[in-house]
Amino acid sequence: MSAFKPVRFVEVHLEGQFWQERLETVLTRTIPSQHVQLGEHGILESLTLPAPPPPLRFPRNEHNFTVQVFWDSDVGKWIEAASYALSHRRDPDIESKIEKITDDLEKAQAPDGYVNCWYLQREPDKRWTNLRDNHELYNLGHLIEGAIAYFLATGRRRLLSLLERYVEHVRATFGPGPDQKRGYCGHQEIELALIRLYRLTGERKHLDLASYFINERGKQPHYFDEEARRRGEQPSDFWAKSYEYNQSHKPVREQTKVVGHAVRAMYMYSAMADLAAELKDDSLKRTLEVLWADVIGSKMYITSGLGPAAANEGFTEDYDLPNDTAYAETCASVALIFWAQRMLHLDLSGKYADVMEQALFNGALTGLARDGTHYFYSNPLESDGRHSRWAWHTCPCCTMNASRLIASVGGYFLSHSDAAIAFHLYGGVSARVALAGGNVAIRETSTYPWSGDIKITVDPETPFDFALKLRIPGWARGFDVAVNGAAIAGAKAEDGYLTIARRWAAGDQITLTLPMPPERVYAHPAVRMDVGRFALKRGPLVYCVEEADNPGGPVQRLKLPRGAALKPEQRSDLFGGIVTLASPAIRLKDDDWQDTLYRPEAPAEVPTKVTALPYYLWNNRGPGSMLVWLVEG
Amino acid sequence: MSAFKPVRFVEVHLEGQFWQERLETVLTRTIPSQHVQLGEHGILESLTLPAPPPPLRFPRNEHNFTVQVFWDSDVGKWIEAASYALSHRRDPDIESKIEKITDDLEKAQAPDGYVNCWYLQREPDKRWTNLRDNHELYNLGHLIEGAIAYFLATGRRRLLSLLERYVEHVRATFGPGPDQKRGYCGHQEIELALIRLYRLTGERKHLDLASYFINERGKQPHYFDEEARRRGEQPSDFWAKSYEYNQSHKPVREQTKVVGHAVRAMYMYSAMADLAAELKDDSLKRTLEVLWADVIGSKMYITSGLGPAAANEGFTEDYDLPNDTAYAETCASVALIFWAQRMLHLDLSGKYADVMEQALFNGALTGLARDGTHYFYSNPLESDGRHSRWAWHTCPCCTMNASRLIASVGGYFLSHSDAAIAFHLYGGVSARVALAGGNVAIRETSTYPWSGDIKITVDPETPFDFALKLRIPGWARGFDVAVNGAAIAGAKAEDGYLTIARRWAAGDQITLTLPMPPERVYAHPAVRMDVGRFALKRGPLVYCVEEADNPGGPVQRLKLPRGAALKPEQRSDLFGGIVTLASPAIRLKDDDWQDTLYRPEAPAEVPTKVTALPYYLWNNRGPGSMLVWLVEG
Repeated sequence: MSAFKPVRFVEVHLEGQFWQERLETVLTRTIPSQHVQLGEHGILESLTLPAPPPPLRFPRNEHNFTVQVFWDSDVGKWIEAASYALSHRRDPDIESKIEKITDDLEKAQAPDGYVNCWYLQREPDKRWTNLRDNHELYNLGHLIEGAIAYFLATGRRRLLSLLERYVEHVRATFGPGPDQKRGYCGHQEIELALIRLYRLTGERKHLDLASYFINERGKQPHYFDEEARRRGEQPSDFWAKSYEYNQSHKPVREQTKVVGHAVRAMYMYSAMADLAAELKDDSLKRTLEVLWADVIGSKMYITSGLGPAAANEGFTEDYDLPNDTAYAETCASVALIFWAQRMLHLDLSGKYADVMEQALFNGALTGLARDGTHYFYSNPLESDGRHSRWAWHTCPCCTMNASRLIASVGGYFLSHSDAAIAFHLYGGVSARVALAGGNVAIRETSTYPWSGDIKITVDPETPFDFALKLRIPGWARGFDVAVNGAAIAGAKAEDGYLTIARRWAAGDQITLTLPMPPERVYAHPAVRMDVGRFALKRGPLVYCVEEADNPGGPVQRLKLPRGAALKPEQRSDLFGGIVTLASPAIRLKDDDWQDTLYRPEAPAEVPTKVTALPYYLWNNRGPGSMLVWLVEG
Repeated sequence: MSAFKPVRFVEVHLEGQFWQERLETVLTRTIPSQHVQLGEHGILESLTLPAPPPPLRFPRNEHNFTVQVFWDSDVGKWIEAASYALSHRRDPDIESKIEKITDDLEKAQAPDGYVNCWYLQREPDKRWTNLRDNHELYNLGHLIEGAIAYFLATGRRRLLSLLERYVEHVRATFGPGPDQKRGYCGHQEIELALIRLYRLTGERKHLDLASYFINERGKQPHYFDEEARRRGEQPSDFWAKSYEYNQSHKPVREQTKVVGHAVRAMYMYSAMADLAAELKDDSLKRTLEVLWADVIGSKMYITSGLGPAAANEGFTEDYDLPNDTAYAETCASVALIFWAQRMLHLDLSGKYADVMEQALFNGALTGLARDGTHYFYSNPLESDGRHSRWAWHTCPCCTMNASRLIASVGGYFLSHSDAAIAFHLYGGVSARVALAGGNVAIRETSTYPWSGDIKITVDPETPFDFALKLRIPGWARGFDVAVNGAAIAGAKAEDGYLTIARRWAAGDQITLTLPMPPERVYAHPAVRMDVGRFALKRGPLVYCVEEADNPGGPVQRLKLPRGAALKPEQRSDLFGGIVTLASPAIRLKDDDWQDTLYRPEAPAEVPTKVTALPYYLWNNRGPGSMLVWLVEG
């Protein structure tokens, strides 16, 4: 196991333009507007347990399920995101809103500590009768994560305390004892929250309960079978057909393939990685390495999108990665970042950091519009123009996953051990890191991801020996590095990190140059959808071709010759300054087709120029067609 | 309107190997096995109205619908197919089975003539309360078509007579009168049957009732709205959301776009074409011409498959023709043949015959396995190997559409007017045709579709003047024709037909040569799925590349260079002798990919040869990948 721990986001100041802009947007627009949406959609009102209960806003579907059962989690995630915002700068208005929510939850809480607003209001006698579908523990998990973030930002412990009482109720309810339920939640999340609570409080019982839920999962007799029978249902009537859906088809250590609902899977693997670290559990770590290889090797879109299918919001067959119907839920990419970061702290290896970066810049950032108030739930890699971000969603899980990630994004840049500081991401940050030998102020300056010219200044309080580990991204075909102007000849990265160990003194300066030529990227030939196609990348960014930059018809009618030169273009006129890619291309004409659909003559071709835009920026200029995988020919 | 009428299939003897084989398979294997399946699936038993009713085999779905409501139609279609078989050769065993069905229906029939086994058995008080969903008139339509075919094959009128009593009940129930329902069936079909009944009996009232149903469709106030309210439902709760689903969104003459459920649409257009012909109704004909141009110009797969989407079993947007998820129901291609043939008899134009041929050889034949007992319901143009024909289907509509089409396929070859005989299809047929000037025996000899070398001998009883009209298919880039060995120089086809008018005498011989070079075919660039791809055709056949002929991995990893020569190969070892196409190709290798999904280097390529098979023959040698639209590059 690695000795590295992340440097918390509150210690990392975002100074670069790229992340400054996203952070400010989230703080000033996204988080306030999300509170408005929670109000307008009845979610805040539901915390007050209005009597009589208002009619369902989202009636039960054919599986007898309504999204309203997880409204508590949306509140928890908003509190978490808002509290990260408060860590950047306090805000009495936001704080009073969280206090009001706390008031409501306090009033709602049952004498035994239970506090789930759906059940308390609508089905008080049905608590814990459908863990498979109804998200009770998931809701608690998100509330805990929110409460911890709020406590850390403000020192106020009232919300957390009431949830700790609920946790005690949960602890009494679940476990191996004769009067306890041997259950666990159909949607993993409580485990992550309990481990976070353990890390905050140091109380081992929380870690043990998280571990219990993970270890119990998938055992026979199957809890969800027994629970269904107690409801008078046939277990085989489970709408998703298989417990692969919630990764309880077998005990977790026997799982070797990534299956089922993508977000559930990623949350579970994240919790397992936490447990592997806390408990030094090699069997969990080995399981995760197998699952990691499976998802990275056969199930991940180039954007890091996960889960091609809408039917199960999740995984299907190996290499089944359709582009226009890709589900690739924003939440799943956010959760992949969680998992990747945790793997990175089990083994400081670039393979994890590469995926974390890829998911951040492409899978996750895409979920939030430039305006900070519109969201993608699913993230297709091709559109005929019908896809647009939503102002809100029936199931608003992705909205707050976007905001809580960006509000805390600084936490993904740096890690440290006793005697080393590791850089995973670049883009303009400063931080103060406490090593065993003393405190170190460090500042990284760059316009990454637009340029790979990176400058790092190191300011230890006093000179002492420690190591700087600089990530050399997997996409970099080479690099140059110098310390105080002196090139380090033959510098080599190991496992994705270049280690510079020396006695550092105030003002020492490193320059790292990561060349960023535009690149064509090809998919494994088993991805049948992408045969004869390629994608464009530059640095960590996946590009797409969007109609807004390429007027004249659907972008699907463009072909790019294999050898054509790709040219980066600095565009100060777009989105505050970005780099686009230009290439000679061919446009298929249709004006000589008359009324037929098929003919022996190939479509006429006219030369044109194509401009590609970073994928995460698509659909910010109105509807239009978009394509990531371009036809080569 | 054209003066041509089809020559009935009983007058056309299939002598060529291609159709002989299909016909024999259907007569000896398909039709008997379908009766067995109707028995095993409870459909025959349902005609006996067992009391108490057995539990539903196919429980109601979330739309409160069970396929069992249209079981009567499956019986009707089987009787129709079986009776066509009897027209080829009588069979006491089959006849006794139809007599048994007739006995059951006679016993089931209510005193007022009504005979729908679902309602009589399970919901006797709910007759005619849900025309939108429950197929009552559709069922009657198929029973009538079966009864007419049985009467024509055997002279037995008992089944037809009992249905005529039912038709009188329907006539009393539906119409503009104050005590009548102004309704029509949610699934068109009764109209076709009534027109057929009119043509058999000469009774104008049947034509009028068909015309009433077509003309009433889509009028306001909307019958399905009123009917839903009478059931206590909100019309807006209709699961399909729009009456486009069943083409009742507007009056038929106002419809300009092909929408909704594909089979419903094709049955309706076929009935409209019949009415246009019988009533010399130019407004209907013009409507059909607009709809024809719409479907052919933007909504038809190259195989003639119709309806890309499973959700509505039907049409979506223009040019939305996904290949691997194509629904393209077999029934829809069969019904397109019905419509095309009817359009051809409104205007003897090759554009209709071309589609009829294309649908026959590609969309419809594909539905039935070589063994005669397995069926495709949906017909994708790409498979990763997971598609296979079914032995039966929850909704077995396609099975009997395949058998009734093939058992009567001779009826699509020839038409005649008073003074002309027209050939639409070739492949080895003989017929005796009565013209005004006398009877003509005619024999066409060829191995079409494998070869375009066609010989026709003409034997009028006595020499007289008439015209032969030979279809020159739209796919033919030229042709040669000679009469009695003398080439007709500069012969030109008009509207797809070459007319040879002369005094014909016994033994006159025509040779027609249609060159059949293999061809690449390209899709309109608006079909985004097919950009950078082409399909292979030879003559009327669309080809596909199947793993069985191209071992070494999924066929999706093959690319075909644009200029590569295509070579037809006579293969006596395959399916009784067929022509395959061979081409140099490139196979993408994956053995140097290790564990990654994406990389900057294009996949390694190795030269190979690809063998393409007629699409209708795919999936007859076990599971495997298949592709129609091949990557060019």
